[in-house]
Amino acid sequence: MTGTTQARPPIGVAVVGAGYWGPNLVRNFRASPDWELVAVCDLDEERARRVLGGGSGDVLVTSSLAEVLGRDDVAAVAVATPARTHQGIALAALRAGKHVLVEKPLADSVPHGRAMVEAAREQGLVLMADHTYCYTPAVLKIRELVEAGELGEILFVDSVRINLGLVQPDVDVFWDLAPHDLSILDFVLPGGLRPTGVAAQGADPLRAGKACVGYLSLPLPGGSMAHVHVNWLSPTKIRQMVVAGTRRTLVWDDLNPQQRVSVYDRGVDLAQQAVGTTDRTAATISYRLGDTWAPALPEREALAGMAAEFAASIRERRPSRTDGAAGLRVLRVLDGASRSLAAGGVLVDTDISTTQLEVVG
Amino acid sequence: MTGTTQARPPIGVAVVGAGYWGPNLVRNFRASPDWELVAVCDLDEERARRVLGGGSGDVLVTSSLAEVLGRDDVAAVAVATPARTHQGIALAALRAGKHVLVEKPLADSVPHGRAMVEAAREQGLVLMADHTYCYTPAVLKIRELVEAGELGEILFVDSVRINLGLVQPDVDVFWDLAPHDLSILDFVLPGGLRPTGVAAQGADPLRAGKACVGYLSLPLPGGSMAHVHVNWLSPTKIRQMVVAGTRRTLVWDDLNPQQRVSVYDRGVDLAQQAVGTTDRTAATISYRLGDTWAPALPEREALAGMAAEFAASIRERRPSRTDGAAGLRVLRVLDGASRSLAAGGVLVDTDISTTQLEVVG
Amino acid sequence: MTGTTQARPPIGVAVVGAGYWGPNLVRNFRASPDWELVAVCDLDEERARRVLGGGSGDVLVTSSLAEVLGRDDVAAVAVATPARTHQGIALAALRAGKHVLVEKPLADSVPHGRAMVEAAREQGLVLMADHTYCYTPAVLKIRELVEAGELGEILFVDSVRINLGLVQPDVDVFWDLAPHDLSILDFVLPGGLRPTGVAAQGADPLRAGKACVGYLSLPLPGGSMAHVHVNWLSPTKIRQMVVAGTRRTLVWDDLNPQQRVSVYDRGVDLAQQAVGTTDRTAATISYRLGDTWAPALPEREALAGMAAEFAASIRERRPSRTDGAAGLRVLRVLDGASRSLAAGGVLVDTDISTTQLEVVG
Amino acid sequence: MTGTTQARPPIGVAVVGAGYWGPNLVRNFRASPDWELVAVCDLDEERARRVLGGGSGDVLVTSSLAEVLGRDDVAAVAVATPARTHQGIALAALRAGKHVLVEKPLADSVPHGRAMVEAAREQGLVLMADHTYCYTPAVLKIRELVEAGELGEILFVDSVRINLGLVQPDVDVFWDLAPHDLSILDFVLPGGLRPTGVAAQGADPLRAGKACVGYLSLPLPGGSMAHVHVNWLSPTKIRQMVVAGTRRTLVWDDLNPQQRVSVYDRGVDLAQQAVGTTDRTAATISYRLGDTWAPALPEREALAGMAAEFAASIRERRPSRTDGAAGLRVLRVLDGASRSLAAGGVLVDTDISTTQLEVVG
Repeated sequence: MTGTTQARPPIGVAVVGAGYWGPNLVRNFRASPDWELVAVCDLDEERARRVLGGGSGDVLVTSSLAEVLGRDDVAAVAVATPARTHQGIALAALRAGKHVLVEKPLADSVPHGRAMVEAAREQGLVLMADHTYCYTPAVLKIRELVEAGELGEILFVDSVRINLGLVQPDVDVFWDLAPHDLSILDFVLPGGLRPTGVAAQGADPLRAGKACVGYLSLPLPGGSMAHVHVNWLSPTKIRQMVVAGTRRTLVWDDLNPQQRVSVYDRGVDLAQQAVGTTDRTAATISYRLGDTWAPALPEREALAGMAAEFAASIRERRPSRTDGAAGLRVLRVLDGASRSLAAGGVLVDTDISTTQLEVVG
Repeated sequence: MTGTTQARPPIGVAVVGAGYWGPNLVRNFRASPDWELVAVCDLDEERARRVLGGGSGDVLVTSSLAEVLGRDDVAAVAVATPARTHQGIALAALRAGKHVLVEKPLADSVPHGRAMVEAAREQGLVLMADHTYCYTPAVLKIRELVEAGELGEILFVDSVRINLGLVQPDVDVFWDLAPHDLSILDFVLPGGLRPTGVAAQGADPLRAGKACVGYLSLPLPGGSMAHVHVNWLSPTKIRQMVVAGTRRTLVWDDLNPQQRVSVYDRGVDLAQQAVGTTDRTAATISYRLGDTWAPALPEREALAGMAAEFAASIRERRPSRTDGAAGLRVLRVLDGASRSLAAGGVLVDTDISTTQLEVVG
Repeated sequence: MTGTTQARPPIGVAVVGAGYWGPNLVRNFRASPDWELVAVCDLDEERARRVLGGGSGDVLVTSSLAEVLGRDDVAAVAVATPARTHQGIALAALRAGKHVLVEKPLADSVPHGRAMVEAAREQGLVLMADHTYCYTPAVLKIRELVEAGELGEILFVDSVRINLGLVQPDVDVFWDLAPHDLSILDFVLPGGLRPTGVAAQGADPLRAGKACVGYLSLPLPGGSMAHVHVNWLSPTKIRQMVVAGTRRTLVWDDLNPQQRVSVYDRGVDLAQQAVGTTDRTAATISYRLGDTWAPALPEREALAGMAAEFAASIRERRPSRTDGAAGLRVLRVLDGASRSLAAGGVLVDTDISTTQLEVVG
Repeated sequence: MTGTTQARPPIGVAVVGAGYWGPNLVRNFRASPDWELVAVCDLDEERARRVLGGGSGDVLVTSSLAEVLGRDDVAAVAVATPARTHQGIALAALRAGKHVLVEKPLADSVPHGRAMVEAAREQGLVLMADHTYCYTPAVLKIRELVEAGELGEILFVDSVRINLGLVQPDVDVFWDLAPHDLSILDFVLPGGLRPTGVAAQGADPLRAGKACVGYLSLPLPGGSMAHVHVNWLSPTKIRQMVVAGTRRTLVWDDLNPQQRVSVYDRGVDLAQQAVGTTDRTAATISYRLGDTWAPALPEREALAGMAAEFAASIRERRPSRTDGAAGLRVLRVLDGASRSLAAGGVLVDTDISTTQLEVVG
C-alpha cells in the first residue's frame, strides 16, 4: 500500500454465474493487475470449471455461494446471474462485507434495487452496476464532450437499437435492450438520467405474450426529450444515438468502425430577442451549417475499463462512475415503462428527480 | 382520331395559389396531354404571371377566384394555398361544379375536411388529396408488394423523417412533416390508415412555442404498430421507412438512389403450436436469414403520375387513389396527435375505424 | 455607375453551340451581372432559339459564326461544340479579337490545342478551358487545403469515376471521362499536372471498337503517383478521389452530399534517421490514427463560379485559373494515354514538364 | 466403423511454424474430426508450446523438422513459415511422403514453386495452397454464380484492397497483399487466372525502398481485363471486388457484413447486328437497369472449410480446389508484376496460358 500504483496488491474477486456473461468477467479479471481471481461459483460446477479453460490453477470452483462469501481472500463479488437472483446474492455478499458488481439490470424491481443500494450505503461498500457500454471509448468521449459543454444544452436524444433478436422467455424488449440505452443516457446526461416522466408504447404483433417492439419517451427537465426505440423484429441492425445540443450535435453510429462518433457544428439558432419580449416564438431563426468532426477513438475493450473502475472505486472509497444509484435510476425508468405500457402509454412519474441515494458514505 | 385514349380532349384546369407548390402543378399540367391549363389564380397577380414564365399564351391570370369558377372551360381546380384556406376555396369550387385537387394536408381541421368530403360526395365530384409521395415509384412498389402479400401480415411500420428544417410560424412539426408519412401509410396499408388510437410525444427544447421534435405511435388492428419520428432539429437527414411483415420486411431509404427499396427475406417465425394451446408464448421461435432483393424502380416524376391519376379518376368517375377520404384519415390522425400532445401523450381515439366516407357516388 | 465593382458594365458574350452543354452556359451568362448574352449561334437555328425559351429578347440567334464574330458588342465567345471543331472556331474568334472559353477537352489533339494557346498568347487574349469541376465547392476546398500545406507532400492520388455510361460513338472512355479527373488533378496539384509519364491500360470486352474500361497511371515527380479509373460498364456509380499526403489524407466522395470531403489525420510516418543513413528502408515506421474532419461546403453552382472567373480574368488581364495551358496539359496526358494504349501500356513521355506556355502576356 | 463418412479415422498432421498464421491452423485442425494434430514444429520451441495453450496433451512439440517428418503418424504437413523457406520444407516433406499444405504465397519464386508442384506430381501427393479467402462463404458463392453462368461472360474484374498497412521489411505491397486478390481471381475465373500478360505500376512516395502503392493490369483472353489496386497508405479501408459480366454484375464488399455480395441485373447490351456485319462498333447499344439481389451467406469460418478440403483431397486422391498449380499461377503473376515494375510498367508475358501442371496423378 505504499508508493507507486503498481505496488498495490491485487484485490481478490469471485465471479458468481458462469453463463453468458461470466466468462467475459473471468477473462478480464484474470488479465488485470488490479485483480486476483479467487473463485468461480455456479450451480453447475462443470460449467464453472469450463470457464477457466485448461488451467484452473489455484482458482476455487464451487457451487456454494456461502463458501465463496466465507473466504477472507474474497474482497469483491461480481454477480452475473439472472436478474431475478441479483438482490439475494448481492445482499448476502454485502452483509458478508464484500464489494459487489452486478450485471445489468441492477435488479428485477425497484424495491429490490433500492434495498441493494441502501445495504451498500449502510455497510460503506461499493455497489457497482456493470453498465459495460459506458466504458467504451465512444461513450467515454460523448460524456467528455457533454461535460466540457461542447454540445451546449441538450435539446434531444434519440437512440435506436434494433435487430433480429432473440425473443426472451422472461422479459420484454424494454427490459432486454433498453438498459443499454438508459445506462448510457444516465452516464452522459449532466446530472444523470432524471426524466420528468416515462411514456412507453409497445407492440406484440407475433403474439409472443410480451412487447417485441418498443418506444420510450422520456421528457427531460427544461423541455428537451430522450427517446429510445428498441426492437427484436428488425431485419437490419441499427445502433445509433443522436445527442443534439444548442451548440453542436453528435451522432454515434456504433456499427461504423471507421467513424463511430461524428460531431456536427450544425443547428438551429433562435436569435436574441428584444428586451421585454417573453415569447420566443417570434424570435428570428437561423441555421448553422458548419464543419463535421470525428474524434479518433482508441481501440480498448470496455470490460477492461469497467474492471479498472471497480478496483479504483474500492481503493479510493468512492462511488464508481456507474454506481448502484445509476443502476437504480435505470430500474426506475424500466419500471415506469412497464407501468406506462399497462396504462396505454400514459406518461407516468418515476420519482427519479427526488432520488438522493448514494453508495459509499 | 377516334377511339384511342389519345383522342380524348384534355380537361381544363385552373391552379389556385402560385406560391411554393403551385409552380410544380403548373409545370406538370402543362406537360401532360390529359390537361389544358386554363387559368392561374393568386391574390398577387404578378406572382401568378411569373409562374407562367415568358409565354403565358392563352392562360388566364387573375386574382379573382370567382372569375375562375365562373368559366365553363374550367372543369377542375387545383388548390395550392395555405391549409387554412383549403375549405373555403374547395367548397366554392365544388359548389360551382368543379372537380378539386387539394395540396396536403386536406384542410386545417377534421370538421373542415369532413365538410369538403361530404360536399364532393353530394355533388358527385372528384375530391383528391395531393399526396405526392404516393405516386413515387418507391411507394407504388411498396403498395404493390403489400397488396400481393409479399410481406405477409404487417408486424410494424417505423418511419423516420428528420432534418434541419424550417421552424414553421403557424404549425408544429407534426402538421408540417407527418402528413407525408401518414399519407404513405394510408396508401400502403391494407384498408388504409385506421389506427385504433394515436399517442404523441413532442418536445420544444428551443422554446419556439410548438413541438420541433415529435413521435407518433399508432397501434393498428391485430397488435401491430406504426410509429413516426419527425424532427426539425436533426443535423443529419434521414428519410427511412421500415415495413416489417410476417413473410418479409421492406426498408425504404429515400436518400439512397442506388438502392431505395430493399426487401429482406429475414424474420422471426413462431412455430406451429400443439392443438389446444392458446398461448403462443410457449411457441418455438426461429429465425430466417434469407436473401435480400432490391427491385429496379423507374425514374419518373411523382407529380406527373399524380396529375394522370386526377384525370383518370375524373374520366372514369371513380375515387382517386388518394381521395378526400384518404386526406380525411390523415387529418384525423393529425388531430388526434394534437389532442394526445395536449393530454400528455395519452392514447386518444381517432374514430377512423368507423369512418365510411367516400367520394364520387 | 461609378466606383464600385457593381458599376462595371457587363461583358458581351456569344455562345456557340446549343447542344448538350450550351444551354447551361446560356442560363449562367444570363443570370450573371458580369455578362450580357448577345448571341447564340448554332447550325440549327431552331435549336438555338429553343435554348432561349419563350423570350429571346434582344439576343441574336444565328447560324453564322462570321456574323457573331463581326459584332463589336461581342467581346467573348463561349464554345460548346464537338471537340473536333474547337480549334477552328477558337482560332477564328481569337483572330477576330475575342476572348474565348472552350468546353473540355480543349481540343481534339495536342497540336490543335497548342495552336490555340499560342494564338491567344500572341493576341493577348484570354483562352479559358471550361473545367467546370474545378469550380465546385469541393474542388476549391481541396485546392485550398493542398496549397496551405494541410496535407503535406502528396504521396498518391487515386481517382475513380465509374458508372453505366453511354458508349460514345467517336471517343473512348479515356477521352470521355478522364478530362474531368485530369483537369481536377491539374487544378489541385502544386504546379499543375506534370507527370513524368503516362501508362494506360484499357479493355474493350464488348468489342465496341474502343476502350470502355480504362486505367491511367501517372508517375509524379518525387516518387508519388496519380491513378485514374474510368469505366462505362460499372453497375454502381462511384465518383471518389483520394489525395494522400505526408501530413493528412483527403477523401472526396462526390456522391455523398452529407460529407463530400473528409480529411483524415491518419498516415504512415517514417521516423527521422540517423545522420549519414541514406537508406530509408531501415527507418522506423509508425502510424498516426488521428481525428477526421469534414469541412462545411457552401451550396453553389460551379458554372456560376466559372463564368465569374472568365469575366475576372478578362477584366484583370490575367490567365484564368483554368487557362488554355491547363487545357493543354490535360490534352497532353490524354494524348499520352492513347499512345501508351497503342503500345501495350508502356510508359510514354508527355513533355509536360518542359511545357512553358502561358496565355495573356 | 465401416460405411459412413464419420467412421473414417482422422489424418495425422503436423504444423510447421508457430508465428502469425500457425495458431489459426492449429486451432482449426484441433477442432476438426478430419484431423488429428500430431506435432507442432518451430525453431522456437517455447513459441510452439504456447500455441497449444495450457493443454498440449499428446501433441509433440519440437524444433526438429526431421523428427516430424520421420514419424509414421504424420501423413500431412502444414507449412506456415516465411515464404523464403517454403520450398525447402515442402520438398523435404514431399520426399518423406507427406501431403503438404503451404501458406500463401506458395513460394518466393516461380522456379521454387514449380519444383514443389513437380515433386508433388512425381510423388502422387497432394500439394495445396492455403488460399484461405477462397473458402469464405462470399467467394464460394461468387465461384458458384460464375460457374452457373449467372454473370454471363466476364467483362472486367476490378479489385481494391487498401488500408493503412504495415510496410513489410522483406516484400513490397504486391507480394504482401495481391496474393489475396490473385488467388481469388484464380478461384472464380473459369479456367483459373490465365492473363495474357501483366503490367504493374507502383509508387514508393515514402522512399521506403519498395512499392507501397500498386496497380496490376491483367488482360484476359477475349478482351476482358482484371485490375488490382493494393495500397498500404490509404487512411480508409476498402476491400471490394467488382466482377462484371455480360448478363449481370457482382459487387463484393467484404466490409459490409449486412450485404457482402450484391448481384446487379444491370449492364450494357450490344444489339444483334445485321448479317454480314463484322464491325460491332455500329451495333445499337442499350442499357438494362434491373433488380439487385443479395444472396444470404452462411456464417462459417473459412479456415475450417480449407482444412476440410485438404482432408477431402487427400482421401479422394484428387487435386484440392486450391492446389499447387493454383499457387503457381499466382506466383507467375507476382513474378510478372516484379518484372513489369522493373521495366517501367510494360506488359510482360507470364506463360501461364501454356502451364499444364497438375498435382496428384
